[in-house]
Amino acid sequence: MEQKYTIGIVGGTGYTGVELLRILAGHPHVTVKMITSRSEKGVRLDDMFPSLRGVYDLAFEDIDLDALKQCDLVFFATPNGVAMNYVKELVSAGVKVIDLAADFRIKDLSVWSKWYGMEHAAPEIVEQAVYGLPEIYREQIKTAQVIANPGCYATAVQLGFIPLVESGLVDVNHLIANVASGVSGAGKGASVATLYSEVNESYKAYAAQGHRHQPEIKQQLDSLSETPVKLTFVPHLIPMTRGIHATLYATDVKNKTAEQVQEIFAQRYQNEPFVDVLPVGDYPETRSVKGGNICRISVLKPQDEEIIVVLCVIDNLVKGAAGQAVQNMNLMLGFEETLGLTAAPLVP
Amino acid sequence: MEQKYTIGIVGGTGYTGVELLRILAGHPHVTVKMITSRSEKGVRLDDMFPSLRGVYDLAFEDIDLDALKQCDLVFFATPNGVAMNYVKELVSAGVKVIDLAADFRIKDLSVWSKWYGMEHAAPEIVEQAVYGLPEIYREQIKTAQVIANPGCYATAVQLGFIPLVESGLVDVNHLIANVASGVSGAGKGASVATLYSEVNESYKAYAAQGHRHQPEIKQQLDSLSETPVKLTFVPHLIPMTRGIHATLYATDVKNKTAEQVQEIFAQRYQNEPFVDVLPVGDYPETRSVKGGNICRISVLKPQDEEIIVVLCVIDNLVKGAAGQAVQNMNLMLGFEETLGLTAAPLVP
Amino acid sequence: MEQKYTIGIVGGTGYTGVELLRILAGHPHVTVKMITSRSEKGVRLDDMFPSLRGVYDLAFEDIDLDALKQCDLVFFATPNGVAMNYVKELVSAGVKVIDLAADFRIKDLSVWSKWYGMEHAAPEIVEQAVYGLPEIYREQIKTAQVIANPGCYATAVQLGFIPLVESGLVDVNHLIANVASGVSGAGKGASVATLYSEVNESYKAYAAQGHRHQPEIKQQLDSLSETPVKLTFVPHLIPMTRGIHATLYATDVKNKTAEQVQEIFAQRYQNEPFVDVLPVGDYPETRSVKGGNICRISVLKPQDEEIIVVLCVIDNLVKGAAGQAVQNMNLMLGFEETLGLTAAPLVP
Amino acid sequence: MEQKYTIGIVGGTGYTGVELLRILAGHPHVTVKMITSRSEKGVRLDDMFPSLRGVYDLAFEDIDLDALKQCDLVFFATPNGVAMNYVKELVSAGVKVIDLAADFRIKDLSVWSKWYGMEHAAPEIVEQAVYGLPEIYREQIKTAQVIANPGCYATAVQLGFIPLVESGLVDVNHLIANVASGVSGAGKGASVATLYSEVNESYKAYAAQGHRHQPEIKQQLDSLSETPVKLTFVPHLIPMTRGIHATLYATDVKNKTAEQVQEIFAQRYQNEPFVDVLPVGDYPETRSVKGGNICRISVLKPQDEEIIVVLCVIDNLVKGAAGQAVQNMNLMLGFEETLGLTAAPLVP
Repeated sequence: MEQKYTIGIVGGTGYTGVELLRILAGHPHVTVKMITSRSEKGVRLDDMFPSLRGVYDLAFEDIDLDALKQCDLVFFATPNGVAMNYVKELVSAGVKVIDLAADFRIKDLSVWSKWYGMEHAAPEIVEQAVYGLPEIYREQIKTAQVIANPGCYATAVQLGFIPLVESGLVDVNHLIANVASGVSGAGKGASVATLYSEVNESYKAYAAQGHRHQPEIKQQLDSLSETPVKLTFVPHLIPMTRGIHATLYATDVKNKTAEQVQEIFAQRYQNEPFVDVLPVGDYPETRSVKGGNICRISVLKPQDEEIIVVLCVIDNLVKGAAGQAVQNMNLMLGFEETLGLTAAPLVP
Repeated sequence: MEQKYTIGIVGGTGYTGVELLRILAGHPHVTVKMITSRSEKGVRLDDMFPSLRGVYDLAFEDIDLDALKQCDLVFFATPNGVAMNYVKELVSAGVKVIDLAADFRIKDLSVWSKWYGMEHAAPEIVEQAVYGLPEIYREQIKTAQVIANPGCYATAVQLGFIPLVESGLVDVNHLIANVASGVSGAGKGASVATLYSEVNESYKAYAAQGHRHQPEIKQQLDSLSETPVKLTFVPHLIPMTRGIHATLYATDVKNKTAEQVQEIFAQRYQNEPFVDVLPVGDYPETRSVKGGNICRISVLKPQDEEIIVVLCVIDNLVKGAAGQAVQNMNLMLGFEETLGLTAAPLVP
Repeated sequence: MEQKYTIGIVGGTGYTGVELLRILAGHPHVTVKMITSRSEKGVRLDDMFPSLRGVYDLAFEDIDLDALKQCDLVFFATPNGVAMNYVKELVSAGVKVIDLAADFRIKDLSVWSKWYGMEHAAPEIVEQAVYGLPEIYREQIKTAQVIANPGCYATAVQLGFIPLVESGLVDVNHLIANVASGVSGAGKGASVATLYSEVNESYKAYAAQGHRHQPEIKQQLDSLSETPVKLTFVPHLIPMTRGIHATLYATDVKNKTAEQVQEIFAQRYQNEPFVDVLPVGDYPETRSVKGGNICRISVLKPQDEEIIVVLCVIDNLVKGAAGQAVQNMNLMLGFEETLGLTAAPLVP
Repeated sequence: MEQKYTIGIVGGTGYTGVELLRILAGHPHVTVKMITSRSEKGVRLDDMFPSLRGVYDLAFEDIDLDALKQCDLVFFATPNGVAMNYVKELVSAGVKVIDLAADFRIKDLSVWSKWYGMEHAAPEIVEQAVYGLPEIYREQIKTAQVIANPGCYATAVQLGFIPLVESGLVDVNHLIANVASGVSGAGKGASVATLYSEVNESYKAYAAQGHRHQPEIKQQLDSLSETPVKLTFVPHLIPMTRGIHATLYATDVKNKTAEQVQEIFAQRYQNEPFVDVLPVGDYPETRSVKGGNICRISVLKPQDEEIIVVLCVIDNLVKGAAGQAVQNMNLMLGFEETLGLTAAPLVP
């Protein structure tokens, strides 16, 4: 009889939680042993998520560290500021942890505190945590005990800028990320701003004066660049549920042709199972990645020849959250990286 | 090395086609060997459907009967009136066939001709074809060579009415099916009526004077009823892509309690892998089946105690088309019925 | 200089409130003098509703009965159970009142208390209030001091059933109202159930076991029928913001032709400015009334010849709420009934 | 008895046509005398647009120049390349003309031919036509006989860039316009690309390599700038029907504070009835202009202090097409500029 790795999920009543459950249900080598939620304690998982009827026979439990320590790996699909209170003890018990929130994403604690409005409870875990973007940190992830799973916008923007910044191709003093997200990115909390009747048939920018993913992206791009980057980051809200589209603008300082830029992207991602560089002239649609753990990218040099435009799409709940977390899990547990993540996106 | 069954798909540029490809991509025992389209001959499959990039390495071919005869099973995802011209020859060659269109659904050829506006080219195949609703015809499907895959509305309405009609519980002279479908049910042909700006933020009934699925449903329910049924069938168009919701009304002639009616449904479907009778008081949402091969059903007796209301949801492209076709394929080829069909629906 | 009637609005932070403000802004003979909201006191109206920038120069005030008594007419766009605490005093001061909530809709106080979960604070106002459906009570409305503005579903269902029930054409023991509403009908309160990501790309029935509009409709139809009606009422939620679609089923007991039934509707509504009986064969779309104070109706006898099907559409926020309230205001203040209500719906 | 100006509409079966009809229906001083459509000749207007039932009593007629010459003003709501064949004769007859298509927008005929793929049939009208953006050309419009009504994207982008370019505040060598439009901008022609099921729940860029509005915008901005501008223009498609959102990026070369830039916008548009500069910190939503002839603008200097970000929203069918056309008509016929255009937008 096959032995499966045991998984615990802390949180899991939100959208990244249900997506994680959906993906893990199709994974051959792991089994979700417990799922916790203080507010929903005792509620059957499939009462909250009828789409999972017949898939899981679990109910939400109160958080119980001793029980979680019996798991091989624990995902935190909790609000920001929760995981940091539990991870240390789990780590001591040898449990691997992947945090889908922001607790361990930013290395500079003063920056973190400024954006997340609290003191950090586990600075030593921040230091030890590996940023879970396999396209940069694959080797470190394999041996990591704690993963800071990247933000959704942060994933899309980094994957688009990495080849340009790494290659020194563009002026890093004027990077522009015009990003747009479906509404599920705002989570499942009751709020007027994300009511159907508030969001439907409308489109707007928001948080351009300051969004938490901006310092996360800047930290990452800085680490790839000779000089610190300057990044203008303007998020928008799209009347749809899933999907992120990043439209990135940078100024070419090396006078490359469109074909040369395309080639730089193709080479950078040639061995990446979950980054798909589209043929010249194609425009990625967010629906082409709906439900799939994949980032599709196009690059072009349109009217103003100095400006390079990169277009990236991901499903914010998959490659931008739960799918990337499972990709990290695969690396941490020594599985094939693509295991459980190859289902084709749902179109239409 | 494992031997896989070979599959051909005729048509396949529409929504049932891409859905069939998506589902078959995850099936362990079959491989799609060829896909045909006269109009798209030579076009790579993943150029038309970028969601399938990296999943298939195929291009559309012209239809070639000799090549199709090399397949173990051929799906027709063509417009109505196409399959009937090819199936006879395939059958003679021993190829199994599943038609996702309406060519073999209606046994009475004069009724068929009236609704589909043409003479039937293969009456003998109509006679031999098995109606592919496993919840009624499972045993016949296992040995069938030609399957008439049911219509999407027809699947939802039958699964809701079967327990009531089989049990003689209701007045079959006044069955009402108030049904509503997402827009993908109308197909991928260019048309003003299904443009985004025509359909979005609106809701309407249509074709209540006569819809092709009405005689199909009536034929089926008649076969389960002592006396012919009278069915009022009113379809509506919902501003969403996927999903069918059937709200069925029938008059209880045996004075059963709500609990007794619930029990009748629970028993009828207790061994069905793809029919899920919800607990009393739950209302099925179409999104709870999005992308999944499952029908969820609720039954209730609301304000007017004589009226039984049945609520059924399916994904029109899955249990209403491609998923049901693969379920039939599994039965025909001797696989586990649920193989390749257990992925959880995509929520949100 | 022209003298305008002065209007007060109590509540007004929700969807019926902003719609009332939008419509009144185009009315030539009234001016909104004050708008109250306890929670939003001091907030400028156009900060909450940027669509009204430049249209009103008002801020929300605390409720002040003395100030309201200076108005000619006061609208209550408050939650259920608020208006009943204030109307008596306003009435004593000679102010006319239109309540857009349910406080005065149901004459039987025990029924009201059962559905609205509280004791009624002003039974004498219930008695005196006129139900504001001009298509039945036009003359009484003209001289009324208090109007109970009908519910949105209730408006659509009544307008569809009135000609059938008044004429004794149908079996009132088996009336079926299959109704569907856009999400704005659920109001602007923060709630998980009406989040964009919960509602989008899904469709479901709800509250079929008991919805507050059912007894309201039954009270009204009973008053038109020789014998009490039995009504099965099943509401559904449509992924769109505005619009109600009612699909009504009744059994013809007088063996009329479709043409005769059409004629009954045409005659009943021939002088109604806001009920539009469509030509035979047309299906009303909800978008054809979006933003307009109009009900469009089709009637047909489809497959089962005994069943009459009536299709009605309204904009739930206009003819189902704010527009009908202004129609009532016009009647009460002696204006032309259509004043300020003739703008064409917004299509697409 | 009041004399009304008579209006003819050529074309009018598309979205700008029905919007023009909706707006003109509420205009006090004009009456639509005739509407033409070759393909729909004889069809009643309200059969095609049920939202206009009871509003117009017209049927589509074949185009008849003699009849059109009897009108005071003729709108062309035709595809590109139609108006140019008729305008000369109408002008000779003293009829004023507003073309909602692109025939007279671009002064350089070789540029026009390149983008619109045909020879121009009326170069002398191009020369005489006034570009119908009242915020720049108000005085010329008042005496013009032919108006080239601006494109929808072009309107939004110009209104956002005008204060920056006119004031020499920004580096015109690196202007970026990241624009997004609802689907109605693509028109009402049958096409797969704009089917509901293709567009819903997806977001993408398109035509970034070359869009017809790019040279139109460049021509206009060039005329305001000391040196020719370089403009990167990337359009995106939003899953909604109405609305354009422009996110504009430019580099501040004069080191202004955010407050100073805000003040430049406020002053530039202080007397404009249809441009609304929002308070600092507000983000314009497209729904705040839905159905209204208004452009709302915010300006900010976010993270990278050199970059100025301007956010503009319009309803593509109103201020981006039919509403602006009526605004131009008001100016041409000597009416109050805002006449018939003051109805508040429809929210939610």
